[in-house]
Amino acid sequence: MNENKKVALIIGAGDATGGAIARRFAREGYVACVTRRSLDKLQPLLEDIRGEGGEAHGFASDARREEQVAELVESIERDIGPIEVMVFNIGANVPCSILEETARKYFKIWEMACFSGFLTSQAVAKRMVGRGRGTILFTGATAGLRGAAGFAAFAGAKHGIRALAQSMARELGPLNVHVAHVVVDGAIDTAFIRDSFPELYAKKDQDGILDPEHIADSYWFLHAQPRDAWTFELDLRPWMERW
Amino acid sequence: MNENKKVALIIGAGDATGGAIARRFAREGYVACVTRRSLDKLQPLLEDIRGEGGEAHGFASDARREEQVAELVESIERDIGPIEVMVFNIGANVPCSILEETARKYFKIWEMACFSGFLTSQAVAKRMVGRGRGTILFTGATAGLRGAAGFAAFAGAKHGIRALAQSMARELGPLNVHVAHVVVDGAIDTAFIRDSFPELYAKKDQDGILDPEHIADSYWFLHAQPRDAWTFELDLRPWMERW
Amino acid sequence: MNENKKVALIIGAGDATGGAIARRFAREGYVACVTRRSLDKLQPLLEDIRGEGGEAHGFASDARREEQVAELVESIERDIGPIEVMVFNIGANVPCSILEETARKYFKIWEMACFSGFLTSQAVAKRMVGRGRGTILFTGATAGLRGAAGFAAFAGAKHGIRALAQSMARELGPLNVHVAHVVVDGAIDTAFIRDSFPELYAKKDQDGILDPEHIADSYWFLHAQPRDAWTFELDLRPWMERW
Amino acid sequence: MNENKKVALIIGAGDATGGAIARRFAREGYVACVTRRSLDKLQPLLEDIRGEGGEAHGFASDARREEQVAELVESIERDIGPIEVMVFNIGANVPCSILEETARKYFKIWEMACFSGFLTSQAVAKRMVGRGRGTILFTGATAGLRGAAGFAAFAGAKHGIRALAQSMARELGPLNVHVAHVVVDGAIDTAFIRDSFPELYAKKDQDGILDPEHIADSYWFLHAQPRDAWTFELDLRPWMERW
Repeated sequence: MNENKKVALIIGAGDATGGAIARRFAREGYVACVTRRSLDKLQPLLEDIRGEGGEAHGFASDARREEQVAELVESIERDIGPIEVMVFNIGANVPCSILEETARKYFKIWEMACFSGFLTSQAVAKRMVGRGRGTILFTGATAGLRGAAGFAAFAGAKHGIRALAQSMARELGPLNVHVAHVVVDGAIDTAFIRDSFPELYAKKDQDGILDPEHIADSYWFLHAQPRDAWTFELDLRPWMERW
Repeated sequence: MNENKKVALIIGAGDATGGAIARRFAREGYVACVTRRSLDKLQPLLEDIRGEGGEAHGFASDARREEQVAELVESIERDIGPIEVMVFNIGANVPCSILEETARKYFKIWEMACFSGFLTSQAVAKRMVGRGRGTILFTGATAGLRGAAGFAAFAGAKHGIRALAQSMARELGPLNVHVAHVVVDGAIDTAFIRDSFPELYAKKDQDGILDPEHIADSYWFLHAQPRDAWTFELDLRPWMERW
Repeated sequence: MNENKKVALIIGAGDATGGAIARRFAREGYVACVTRRSLDKLQPLLEDIRGEGGEAHGFASDARREEQVAELVESIERDIGPIEVMVFNIGANVPCSILEETARKYFKIWEMACFSGFLTSQAVAKRMVGRGRGTILFTGATAGLRGAAGFAAFAGAKHGIRALAQSMARELGPLNVHVAHVVVDGAIDTAFIRDSFPELYAKKDQDGILDPEHIADSYWFLHAQPRDAWTFELDLRPWMERW
Repeated sequence: MNENKKVALIIGAGDATGGAIARRFAREGYVACVTRRSLDKLQPLLEDIRGEGGEAHGFASDARREEQVAELVESIERDIGPIEVMVFNIGANVPCSILEETARKYFKIWEMACFSGFLTSQAVAKRMVGRGRGTILFTGATAGLRGAAGFAAFAGAKHGIRALAQSMARELGPLNVHVAHVVVDGAIDTAFIRDSFPELYAKKDQDGILDPEHIADSYWFLHAQPRDAWTFELDLRPWMERW
């Protein structure tokens, strides 16, 4: 482990938000370690960061598998540097009527959006507590606060991740590990939204959808807070969003 | 199916609360169908209800197994009568530091206290929606509202069950199925509390711990509400409880 | 004071809900003491209760005036009997854009829907604490949980009454005074709704608006709860209501 | 009005937090307009800001008086420049048993900590809406979320201010005015805490109490957010705080 390097580990850097967060921390001097299930899709992000002069490493790692998570954390800490920041950014927003939801899908959504958050944040927290410092950030959603019709599975997972974040924050805060939860409320500027919801995407011209770079600013803000004034939770939404 | 019979299905009638709820609905004329994983422990409850002149059936059924849940609901509806009320009453309050929680236990607590709630309530909801009536009640806890230090797993499961209840209530209310969530906040008068926390149990003389019969009154109250004035959530705690 | 009489004091019995609560407690053997600013409008309610064989007294009392509140409580306790239950039921739902709200109206709404709740509940609480028993119930609204656009004044008052209820519940619970808050979410079957919102009122045939008698059932349920299982808050809404 | 100047108006700059916020916005190039009831106590703050090369103006203005508020806003906009940011920072945390609270104090606390927030934010909002831009920030407290025993009056006022902030945010967001609410949870580094709670103040060495400069950083962060990613609410507490 190179003690002079500071690692920012982004779990679920497949989407626009995870990528923007990785770039932002890289720009601040952190080594960006980014994960998703398959490595090849991480290449553009790695090249971006390196092109900006940053250091970045990609990992094919399934966050739902305890052994893979252990191996991921172990190899980063051994070969690269201490993980100073971890961001859990895996979502799984697949709405469905409660009458039609399958058990398999209900489980998969929880496993992906909640259980993997437990596995990864715990593995990292143990290292951070040993060093007496660190930041763990969770990407949340309005579904973490409210179970809307048609969102039983996603809301269940997001409620679970928020409960995890709260419980960790209360236990680990006094150990100097900052745990926070970001409630993202609104469509994000992604290829998915652009291609699937053109009407929604049209709001982009009016700043009506969230720019991943601006989401990333909030993650950096949270990490940079001095410890006498830590935030546990903040929400982010476009100015024109109804809520 | 005997259309003249009204079934109250209590999932997790192993503890004092589930038993009291079953007895209460039996006294109101419902056939009490009670489940837990092993049948023999249900015998005293079945005898109680029958001794009071009620009808009761016990089922060894693992609520975490989709096939067992399907079989349970199918056999009750076929052989006994329509399920008019379902109560999900499985808990799993096992506190643990986030640093020591195992992945296995984190999963088991969710599977028991949340996933089985999804499986059972969904299976029953489909029948109720077909008939255009019914009540589904979930036993919740303060951990469903707040993730305290040392309660990441339990809070995660209870947050999940509350998200499920909310999402179902919003979708199924307009289909005339009443879904509600009871936040039980405080120690309940059980053998477990009596034997393991004698100091806490001593408060019983001052009504300082919850009497399962009184919890059951609230479940009956919720079921009996006319549909122009349905409650989604109420809390229950002893008068002297700090909160 | 006649120690054998039990008084239920309804502050703001001018509307359908207050009237129904008064009738309900009268039927349960309580002397209904009902207030509003002018006495004559209380006559039909008093006659109703007396016609059903109950005892009822009307008081013209402005709940926003400390001296009138003191005089009200003093005279009831002196001439009639101990106040066992108090219900605060004054609303003031007058929506307005924040840009057009007047300072006078913002103040009036708070004075009516919050300050008078403080004055009356405190005056009664002092008596109840002296006797070591009693119930204080507040009629709340969704605006007590959420500040919607156009509802700054009403939401402010309702948030204030909920804060009052919570604070009282936490302080007075351990003194054996039960304080609870009912979140009424939806239109109520009143002459006002019938005359001003005929479209909304048409939902009555489908149980789509709240029947005051059913609201009153919940108030009675709260008062009747044994003290080992007290509810602080419950919500009430029609089955078809969006929330 | 000098269109090239940008005014940050801090209502209630008497305490450490208000002062730090004023200094921070002055450093960012805003003209700091600061108010409290008497002018002389503002002198040190004004000198501080001017000493750092900033522009600052003090106003003796009672935020509870509609005419004084109108005059304040009018004179700033006429003589200095457009108010781009307003911070409402008046508190009134005076705990008291609900049994001993006086009507006068209950009213005064609301008038100071809530009503004056309505008067000032509305007066400023009208200007901002006219220009189609602006930021309004409210200093909140945990008492705005939860009514603890002994805090009925303060919690009532803080709940009211949060309701106001929410209602304004929902109405004015789509008009490009950013309204946000900061939940400050913990003791702040002030002369009052130092002199009255020396034990609490001793935590300062461990970063156990909030540094006003760091609180101010969050206010700046909120104001600086691009409008596609606005925060309505964030909390701030020391790492070691129990919550």
